[in-house]
Amino acid sequence: MSEAKGRVLLAYSGGLDTSCILAWLIEQGYEVYAFMADVGQEEDFEAARKKALAVGAKKFFLEDLKREFVTDLIYPAVQANAIYENVYLLGTSLARPVIARGMIAIADKEGCDFVSHGCTGKGNDQVRFELAFYGLKPDIKVVAPWRIPGMFPLFSSYEFALLTYAAEKQIPVQQTAAKPWSTDENLFHISYEAGILEDPDTTPPADMWKLTASPEEAPTTPQKISIEFKAGLPVKVTDGSNVYTDPVDVFLALNALARKHGIGRIDIVENRFIGVKSRGCYESPAATILRVAHMDIEGLTLDRNVRALRDQFVTIELARILYNGHWFTPEREFVVSSIPASQRTVNGVVRLKLYKGNVIVEGRSSDEGLYDEKQSSMDELGGFEPTDTTGFIQIESIRIKKWAQANIRKGEAGVEPKDVYRVRV
Amino acid sequence: MSEAKGRVLLAYSGGLDTSCILAWLIEQGYEVYAFMADVGQEEDFEAARKKALAVGAKKFFLEDLKREFVTDLIYPAVQANAIYENVYLLGTSLARPVIARGMIAIADKEGCDFVSHGCTGKGNDQVRFELAFYGLKPDIKVVAPWRIPGMFPLFSSYEFALLTYAAEKQIPVQQTAAKPWSTDENLFHISYEAGILEDPDTTPPADMWKLTASPEEAPTTPQKISIEFKAGLPVKVTDGSNVYTDPVDVFLALNALARKHGIGRIDIVENRFIGVKSRGCYESPAATILRVAHMDIEGLTLDRNVRALRDQFVTIELARILYNGHWFTPEREFVVSSIPASQRTVNGVVRLKLYKGNVIVEGRSSDEGLYDEKQSSMDELGGFEPTDTTGFIQIESIRIKKWAQANIRKGEAGVEPKDVYRVRV
Amino acid sequence: MSEAKGRVLLAYSGGLDTSCILAWLIEQGYEVYAFMADVGQEEDFEAARKKALAVGAKKFFLEDLKREFVTDLIYPAVQANAIYENVYLLGTSLARPVIARGMIAIADKEGCDFVSHGCTGKGNDQVRFELAFYGLKPDIKVVAPWRIPGMFPLFSSYEFALLTYAAEKQIPVQQTAAKPWSTDENLFHISYEAGILEDPDTTPPADMWKLTASPEEAPTTPQKISIEFKAGLPVKVTDGSNVYTDPVDVFLALNALARKHGIGRIDIVENRFIGVKSRGCYESPAATILRVAHMDIEGLTLDRNVRALRDQFVTIELARILYNGHWFTPEREFVVSSIPASQRTVNGVVRLKLYKGNVIVEGRSSDEGLYDEKQSSMDELGGFEPTDTTGFIQIESIRIKKWAQANIRKGEAGVEPKDVYRVRV
Amino acid sequence: MSEAKGRVLLAYSGGLDTSCILAWLIEQGYEVYAFMADVGQEEDFEAARKKALAVGAKKFFLEDLKREFVTDLIYPAVQANAIYENVYLLGTSLARPVIARGMIAIADKEGCDFVSHGCTGKGNDQVRFELAFYGLKPDIKVVAPWRIPGMFPLFSSYEFALLTYAAEKQIPVQQTAAKPWSTDENLFHISYEAGILEDPDTTPPADMWKLTASPEEAPTTPQKISIEFKAGLPVKVTDGSNVYTDPVDVFLALNALARKHGIGRIDIVENRFIGVKSRGCYESPAATILRVAHMDIEGLTLDRNVRALRDQFVTIELARILYNGHWFTPEREFVVSSIPASQRTVNGVVRLKLYKGNVIVEGRSSDEGLYDEKQSSMDELGGFEPTDTTGFIQIESIRIKKWAQANIRKGEAGVEPKDVYRVRV
Repeated sequence: MSEAKGRVLLAYSGGLDTSCILAWLIEQGYEVYAFMADVGQEEDFEAARKKALAVGAKKFFLEDLKREFVTDLIYPAVQANAIYENVYLLGTSLARPVIARGMIAIADKEGCDFVSHGCTGKGNDQVRFELAFYGLKPDIKVVAPWRIPGMFPLFSSYEFALLTYAAEKQIPVQQTAAKPWSTDENLFHISYEAGILEDPDTTPPADMWKLTASPEEAPTTPQKISIEFKAGLPVKVTDGSNVYTDPVDVFLALNALARKHGIGRIDIVENRFIGVKSRGCYESPAATILRVAHMDIEGLTLDRNVRALRDQFVTIELARILYNGHWFTPEREFVVSSIPASQRTVNGVVRLKLYKGNVIVEGRSSDEGLYDEKQSSMDELGGFEPTDTTGFIQIESIRIKKWAQANIRKGEAGVEPKDVYRVRV
Repeated sequence: MSEAKGRVLLAYSGGLDTSCILAWLIEQGYEVYAFMADVGQEEDFEAARKKALAVGAKKFFLEDLKREFVTDLIYPAVQANAIYENVYLLGTSLARPVIARGMIAIADKEGCDFVSHGCTGKGNDQVRFELAFYGLKPDIKVVAPWRIPGMFPLFSSYEFALLTYAAEKQIPVQQTAAKPWSTDENLFHISYEAGILEDPDTTPPADMWKLTASPEEAPTTPQKISIEFKAGLPVKVTDGSNVYTDPVDVFLALNALARKHGIGRIDIVENRFIGVKSRGCYESPAATILRVAHMDIEGLTLDRNVRALRDQFVTIELARILYNGHWFTPEREFVVSSIPASQRTVNGVVRLKLYKGNVIVEGRSSDEGLYDEKQSSMDELGGFEPTDTTGFIQIESIRIKKWAQANIRKGEAGVEPKDVYRVRV
Repeated sequence: MSEAKGRVLLAYSGGLDTSCILAWLIEQGYEVYAFMADVGQEEDFEAARKKALAVGAKKFFLEDLKREFVTDLIYPAVQANAIYENVYLLGTSLARPVIARGMIAIADKEGCDFVSHGCTGKGNDQVRFELAFYGLKPDIKVVAPWRIPGMFPLFSSYEFALLTYAAEKQIPVQQTAAKPWSTDENLFHISYEAGILEDPDTTPPADMWKLTASPEEAPTTPQKISIEFKAGLPVKVTDGSNVYTDPVDVFLALNALARKHGIGRIDIVENRFIGVKSRGCYESPAATILRVAHMDIEGLTLDRNVRALRDQFVTIELARILYNGHWFTPEREFVVSSIPASQRTVNGVVRLKLYKGNVIVEGRSSDEGLYDEKQSSMDELGGFEPTDTTGFIQIESIRIKKWAQANIRKGEAGVEPKDVYRVRV
Repeated sequence: MSEAKGRVLLAYSGGLDTSCILAWLIEQGYEVYAFMADVGQEEDFEAARKKALAVGAKKFFLEDLKREFVTDLIYPAVQANAIYENVYLLGTSLARPVIARGMIAIADKEGCDFVSHGCTGKGNDQVRFELAFYGLKPDIKVVAPWRIPGMFPLFSSYEFALLTYAAEKQIPVQQTAAKPWSTDENLFHISYEAGILEDPDTTPPADMWKLTASPEEAPTTPQKISIEFKAGLPVKVTDGSNVYTDPVDVFLALNALARKHGIGRIDIVENRFIGVKSRGCYESPAATILRVAHMDIEGLTLDRNVRALRDQFVTIELARILYNGHWFTPEREFVVSSIPASQRTVNGVVRLKLYKGNVIVEGRSSDEGLYDEKQSSMDELGGFEPTDTTGFIQIESIRIKKWAQANIRKGEAGVEPKDVYRVRV
């Protein structure tokens, strides 16, 4: 078979879709190298290697990217409390830049002219992968089979077409009772979408959730742990006599604890980058604990004004950047550059109780000294002059009084004219 | 006793502090009228009335403000998902404007020259009350006894001093085993602060929590309910055969459900308006359910860009306005004026499961039509042209490629130079 | 010739491009109606009508949209101080929604299946027109000839190809010494781009600027005028004995004054919606005066906090919405809904001096009463207690002192360790 | 005379006010050291030294802070395009942190227990000085005489009282025909406020403006210059054969050019930090040129999304931080930390024409490569596929069409129902 079109590095999953794409790329005249990233998903990588080579890949690359996934992507997201539309913790979005960077590194080293992936034409991942490719290597060429008009018939009657194509190409198929939804799994989370979940009023079946126990089935005995943060990063998890300090270990330990205690499930309708609303379910076990703990330690250790500015700008913008696949962009460089200054003082320990889906803060401590028990106390003055507050309130009221006087003069306020100050419902 | 200084309307609670203030105001030469607002707190109003008159108040006013508390303050907060520092649902902040408005209405009608309150000089409530007074009636005069230098000795050895003063003034004291913390209660929440809670690493004792069952003690059987929203407001709660539609009933019904199922406890260190960090614990039962449900129905029914703008501006600014006592200000008028346009399409039903502290979304539906199952589906084209996404990605990549080319030209990026695109930890 | 494809309403300019498109649409089998909007541009509408019909249009529609251009689009932009990238006053962006709405009204009434325009495939206007069409009539079909692959050859050797095509189709051509740039003109502004302007270091030739005198050639005698605002809108312009109050008259009068005095030229490199940087020159005469005057009267009459919030959210978001063609969208509905509350107090008169490109504020007055000469005065107390400021500063310093103490304790500040508080250059 | 109260370092100006304060501090029992900062103001420092010592200061310190004023404060303000309320370039605000830092350094070295200043109790400068003192040395004690109740009589009949006091204390007075306004001058600007300017409708007299020629009197011949930026900083100014590269020289050269050509006057009503509206006039010659030039080079060299985020957050927040005297705070540390990433690509040259108050951009160039003439061109494809834009518009329209369909279904839009999409005026 001719390989005249050049060499392509394919993001390979070991599943039916990318196996068919692998065969199709060969059929189209490409020389195909297969790439897999280990970002912590549960997977038989050796079986995938064999399958890729059997279908016709010339080479197979498996890259263990777990550590850089944690330190390069998850860490800044934790520091910034990144969350999309107040609910989604961005597990898939966070993995894509790491995988794309791994692919481009191999593509560079192996002289690939193209990269390819199996993402569909309606989702976020095609955008995330391709913008990452272009942000790292602007002259790379991308083959996106699902968006090629000739592939539409395959796409529009999806599974049946793929199975036929697989039979024709002698691709081994081990589809045993396929799940009626799609998933994406990594160290940080698993996602569920499509299939029966497309009706947003369908409750996900109990056996869909793969990572976590349900709150109902979680242990009836709570478990207490503590997390120590330095510069906003979780540097030590203590669970009884077990202590974890390595970044990957910390994440895996928290995953195990959260999974056991039914922590981290969500079910939402979100807005994809392309403007389509989409229903997704997610389990993000460790990330859910870390979010609660990090926000709590910030309460004790982060200045009020920095917190407010960071929440309004960095938290929201970083989530948008991640969700929309804009990691390798100047705006990510800009926004992330402000994180260290926001986390310099975020040092301390949070004590937590885990119980049937709940992450309960039991206490926190820090040497930073921004919290001052005496100053805060209602029982002593602690150097505080109550008359100062009188001055503060008087100054704060200057412009408010002017506004109120103008309202009264114009008959627009006072106690009664409700439409000025009352919300109409 | 002379009343030469004029007539003052005192925000009276029935407790030791404001009873002492009442006596002190009379001693200073004021004629005192006592004011109580029923904002849903558990209270023996008749006993309070008797006590106020016994201590020397000339008149006693009890105003039932529950309904306007719900419709004028809680409603916009629900519509805007208002939350302070990502955790606190603003229960005390929401009640203050309603109480202050009630007081100013009475002060106007009864010809009071002054208003007074028993808030301490380090807290938020003094600011909230006084800015509200000035925003409604800019020439009102405020007597804030705790900030008057002569009152410092009382303040600095707080409880003992008050008891002595109470004995001296013959104020009836029914302090039975005083709780080692302060509380503020209303329809929306109860707060706990001060006393033993001032050590942020002290876990609140189990018997502190007054409103809600603990998750551990909550029923082992989940309960399913549904909430219908119109224009972002909860217009119907269905709990089996029980249906609630009146605004106050809706709130009370959700409170009862949440309290039973252990929903709505939080424990945080927050930043007071005056810049002091302070530890607070709160129970906000109904509000916690409403927040989850409202954000969920917005996922299904609110445009992505409106949601993003609203989250960044209205949600954050309204919380700041409420927390800092800026309700009767031009900025509140400005920010709140944008809420109706953000909620026009927020119509639909959310189905929830309540279980041991968890509020679990089980499904949602709406006639708005912004969610389109076919368009969202991965299994069919639904009028969607995948090639369109190719164009979208190409256009989105234009400026990213330019940036990447410049990086490469300057040797600042490519795959390896990690310091451009890697976060350092 | 067959008209089997259906009826199309073409945005017709009278120029070579849209005349060729008209002929091409007919050739493709469409029945063509031509549409022109009078938004204040200098144009021989009658000649255009004749030409359209001569080339083959079945009907010709001329709509006078000047008044709604001023009241529906320009007014909110003035109220919000809308400006794109701090320089561009959005003259083209503002006209597009009005023209698109006019076209959709005719398309509806006349039963057109399609709308068409002559915008190129790299610019902003194609996006602005089409998103407006879809926002008003989501099932409308758009024919965009310049983006049709068959039209590429025409496009890539642009002018020559069009002239050839025009000769072939017997389209009358009156191109006399075509200008080496393109323009878009309306009541609000004229733009210049493309051609020799594509080199951003080329100074525009003096004879390019059409509307305004150059500052050098403007009168040596300054002219004084005044503008009265109500709710942030210019309701009266007084120029000596000339007084203008009608919205369109106000705009035309200010245009005449600004053009005479060399006011309103800019030359920038801006970022198009599609991510391409582009050089544009603009003359926005009246708009430049109005911007200076409106911002000045806001200084006197608008509350500080409303101004700050409005600047950060409405001003910036409205500019983005306008520039990107998102007028008929939910986010425009949301953002614009907050304008009235921001302008309720913006009432007063600004006195200006116009001189050789300068708009100089000479004074302003208002009855709103937010400015208080006595309170502001350094020469008298005016009811102000200087000790209040002491309290204000003490309270403001609470969290700053805590931060400074922590810095010192950690050896991170003090007077010397410059890298904490010094900016490195 | 006793000096029992301790040693105080006084910010001394050489004028009547601070000379009286010096005498008063001695009278109160302080040992007084006098401090002057040379931040570029026109001043006879030697005369001031003699006067301070004559009035009774024990030591006199003169610190030349011009260079750090430029590099530490002005530079980040230029990079961030900092401007307050869209008009004021923050000249006084920028100098205060440098002066305060200079004072604290001397106070530390000389063992002063107190610092003092002559700012009045209604202005911004008292806040700026004191918050800066506390941010650098949280335990410093501040003596603010104008806010001390005993000083009120002096304050309320200001000038007469001071002259009497000066006579009594034998303070030399050289007040010759005092100006009916106050000024603050430094390298960056001069401000005028108070006195006759307190009526906001009074046009400032022509002889008030000290630094700049009026546009009317400026040369009739324009002058062309160029400014080169590196990382957003002006590293070279070329004016004919004159070339300036040193940071202070660059600023002084631009000052001379702008002053000659009548550039940099403004007249506004602004909102002071304490909430009082105040009228100020300012001349900021070099800063006005730099602002125009820096924004222009950003058009050519800064990514669109970075610019938008920086404008909305850094530009606005930095101005607020500066104006309110929050330089030595955690929020300044946070906000400023993001500036370098925003300016990495801001490299290039801007060519300007200066003429009678106008700063006219004539062209700009850069090697950054973010502007691509071919890509931007309307006359060639330049690698651009117009069909891509079709896809882009289709994707952009997805959610807009859904909104429009819902509007139509509910009878809330279409062409006519104006109240949905029309702005009411």
